Amino acid sequence: MKNVIITGSTSGIGLGIAREFAKAGYGITFNGLEKNGEEIAAQIAQEFGVKTIFVAANLLKLEEIKQLAEKTFEAFGKVDVLVNNAGVQFVSPVEDFPEDKWRLIMGVNLDATFFLTQAVWKHMKERKFGRVINITSAHGLRASEFKSAYVASKHAVTGLTKVLALEGAEFGITCNAICPGYVKTPLVEGQIKDQAKAHNMSEEEVIQKVMLKKQAIKEFVSVELLGKLALFLASEEANMITGTSIPVEGGWVVQ
Amino acid sequence: MKNVIITGSTSGIGLGIAREFAKAGYGITFNGLEKNGEEIAAQIAQEFGVKTIFVAANLLKLEEIKQLAEKTFEAFGKVDVLVNNAGVQFVSPVEDFPEDKWRLIMGVNLDATFFLTQAVWKHMKERKFGRVINITSAHGLRASEFKSAYVASKHAVTGLTKVLALEGAEFGITCNAICPGYVKTPLVEGQIKDQAKAHNMSEEEVIQKVMLKKQAIKEFVSVELLGKLALFLASEEANMITGTSIPVEGGWVVQ
Amino acid sequence: MKNVIITGSTSGIGLGIAREFAKAGYGITFNGLEKNGEEIAAQIAQEFGVKTIFVAANLLKLEEIKQLAEKTFEAFGKVDVLVNNAGVQFVSPVEDFPEDKWRLIMGVNLDATFFLTQAVWKHMKERKFGRVINITSAHGLRASEFKSAYVASKHAVTGLTKVLALEGAEFGITCNAICPGYVKTPLVEGQIKDQAKAHNMSEEEVIQKVMLKKQAIKEFVSVELLGKLALFLASEEANMITGTSIPVEGGWVVQ
Amino acid sequence: MKNVIITGSTSGIGLGIAREFAKAGYGITFNGLEKNGEEIAAQIAQEFGVKTIFVAANLLKLEEIKQLAEKTFEAFGKVDVLVNNAGVQFVSPVEDFPEDKWRLIMGVNLDATFFLTQAVWKHMKERKFGRVINITSAHGLRASEFKSAYVASKHAVTGLTKVLALEGAEFGITCNAICPGYVKTPLVEGQIKDQAKAHNMSEEEVIQKVMLKKQAIKEFVSVELLGKLALFLASEEANMITGTSIPVEGGWVVQ
Repeated sequence: MKNVIITGSTSGIGLGIAREFAKAGYGITFNGLEKNGEEIAAQIAQEFGVKTIFVAANLLKLEEIKQLAEKTFEAFGKVDVLVNNAGVQFVSPVEDFPEDKWRLIMGVNLDATFFLTQAVWKHMKERKFGRVINITSAHGLRASEFKSAYVASKHAVTGLTKVLALEGAEFGITCNAICPGYVKTPLVEGQIKDQAKAHNMSEEEVIQKVMLKKQAIKEFVSVELLGKLALFLASEEANMITGTSIPVEGGWVVQ
Repeated sequence: MKNVIITGSTSGIGLGIAREFAKAGYGITFNGLEKNGEEIAAQIAQEFGVKTIFVAANLLKLEEIKQLAEKTFEAFGKVDVLVNNAGVQFVSPVEDFPEDKWRLIMGVNLDATFFLTQAVWKHMKERKFGRVINITSAHGLRASEFKSAYVASKHAVTGLTKVLALEGAEFGITCNAICPGYVKTPLVEGQIKDQAKAHNMSEEEVIQKVMLKKQAIKEFVSVELLGKLALFLASEEANMITGTSIPVEGGWVVQ
Repeated sequence: MKNVIITGSTSGIGLGIAREFAKAGYGITFNGLEKNGEEIAAQIAQEFGVKTIFVAANLLKLEEIKQLAEKTFEAFGKVDVLVNNAGVQFVSPVEDFPEDKWRLIMGVNLDATFFLTQAVWKHMKERKFGRVINITSAHGLRASEFKSAYVASKHAVTGLTKVLALEGAEFGITCNAICPGYVKTPLVEGQIKDQAKAHNMSEEEVIQKVMLKKQAIKEFVSVELLGKLALFLASEEANMITGTSIPVEGGWVVQ
Repeated sequence: MKNVIITGSTSGIGLGIAREFAKAGYGITFNGLEKNGEEIAAQIAQEFGVKTIFVAANLLKLEEIKQLAEKTFEAFGKVDVLVNNAGVQFVSPVEDFPEDKWRLIMGVNLDATFFLTQAVWKHMKERKFGRVINITSAHGLRASEFKSAYVASKHAVTGLTKVLALEGAEFGITCNAICPGYVKTPLVEGQIKDQAKAHNMSEEEVIQKVMLKKQAIKEFVSVELLGKLALFLASEEANMITGTSIPVEGGWVVQ
């Protein structure tokens, strides 16, 4: 049985990816902010008949990041796949961007990705197998205004992904990034409602004209697709795909 | 039953991709230069229990390109997927590059890709479903010396892939490119032997020091991996992956 | 005195670039479709006190491309800089794109760029100095719908530029591309008027909402800026800038 | 008289860039670690007849970053150009990369770039003119092994550069990055000597086979070229070049 650590997996994209890995028989280490993380992990275990654990590590604390890896080693004896999915966003013009938000975004999106990868890296090298999958964003490749910290953090992970690919090359480790466009998570559904009120538009208008403006295909990306792509990249067969940042965004970055 | 046209599919990468599609139950239109194309198509039909046809279209002739599409429509009533795989290469310094080789490479690698896509495009738009998959190369994203025509033709298809993604967006059509590094086809095996003689090196040295020099992972890409990725991109679920050029080259373009 | 060949230089961007090179003291080989090419060349010679010639080579004919180089060698004894600027465009959905337009665009934008470069390449290698500057487009890096041939041809030149950079590296030859956004040439001014009528919009609306939609800076690119950048890339000092495609488009490709 | 702030300008690339700006008549705010920063600033003032100041701000401290901007406003009444040049590097395999080095590199290369830009941004918006030039690296676009922090930080600035371009677009502010390959600074000269000893190679061998391995042109990039390009990007004429990352590396990223 293979196993995977997925950060930020108690809701949204992370949970969607976890479900696909569970469906494929992977043991899963859940992590996230939801209070009922234990329950969520248990539910998935039951639904798909796989082993799961939940570790409520705060990804801003190096000690807790290390524990996330440690508890996975304790429970599963190994880690085959790491999905760095946890991410935060904040929107503000450059001149007003709060220092603490900048540091928060770098801490979660970038530093935690590095330090958690570091915590499993030696182990992966020794086992001559590993898959690191970073969930970045179309903003790992392109920019939007008022998202300076987010875009910088995601571009950083695009670069980090390349270095990890090179350092893992001899050791059976691949590292890739998946770059989603807009995904209809509970968080985004809330944003749609808020913007509809704020702009006095219908929710459908907000979706088509504001949210999906940059995508050629005017649909949300499904978490199932992200999960299936992650699963493909995690497979033994995908041994020669490494360092890539694969856009899953309905034709955004091509324009 | 879904069906696929694969150009250049009577050997090498194209045949490998065809096998994966056959395994998944696709009907297949074979095309290629091998004299025994009919036989190859019949063999795959038997091995995997799928319907296949062979069309010996010369991809330099617009009329024959159109027939490749027509005969597929006749046999299958439709086309779900088109894999533009046929490609030719020629290596020469710029100053000596023969005009006829330049035109041949553009004709097969670029023009035929466009005209065959054009021949199925209206049909795909009307059916609100289509998948166009272009097999380009790491050279669709990066350059090597003495490969001016090849690199130019493959970059052109990278660009064409983006336009097709945009024009297909409203109509359920996606278009993506797969960018292989070195694949151990019979053609490449011949090159290894030749270069080993020419440089007075062992075949293993030629592979490691010459052929795979630019890849971080010093292995050949398997045709199975290319086939599996093509199959994934062809799936209905992959609806939001479009316009991309996905490197499958063991960490070449990241360096 | 240094000298430069500039294709498509009897109007628009090419003429703008020619003026900057003339201002800097370069001898110039003009080429273009304007009937009064001789006059234009003579005017520039007088205005800036430089030597100029005009060669009415049809860039679709290999023989005439070679003559363009030959006549420059005869007149100037050498060629320091080649600016491949001539380009044509045609807009149509993929399914209706006329074969002859596809071939025309490839012939002028791509093939002529290659063959004219080839015609001066050996000479540049022998002199251990050369500058090849390709005027491509934002469409050498990104796509727009209905521009399949144009985007493919410009991406091809992006790739060719990289190969030329590698092959020229040992010989003091650099090759770069400049990627303009929208430039207010007489051609574009005509398009604005036409679209204003067609869409029943003011000319200013056409400019802001249609033409410059993809640029973050809602202004046209000046031919002077393109000329100055070309001149910079042509300088001896710019010896280590090579293979690049430099966007000059007010923030288009970053989005 | 225009003026510029250049971080890390008391030696190496920063000092080279400062000399080009001084030559062009710019007032300069120097910043850097050299003890004799005041002297260096005074020397440039005398040599080129321009006004200079030196501010010994520690770029890891937000308060000192703000003072760097404040003291420039006091001395010059404005800031036209900001060159974020200061950078640090550390080389280590992922598994051993020290936490403090990771945080140092992010602090200097990324955070300081953001916070200093922020400190001048409102002012630039109000004046409707500004030029931000980030000196990144070929590693802002590509990776090398053992440079995880450096590559991530430089990719982050590549992304930040794009956001700044978008947010500045309406306000006459452009933001671009220059991506050097290897530059022969005193620091690099030391590395050459050390590696020559370590590998028992001649210094010339170290340069050709180790240091410049990834560049097609086997020469160092001169600080003069970097300065001249920065000066070009800083000019009023370069108003439509924004968001770009321009490689100056002798054909590295094209391969």
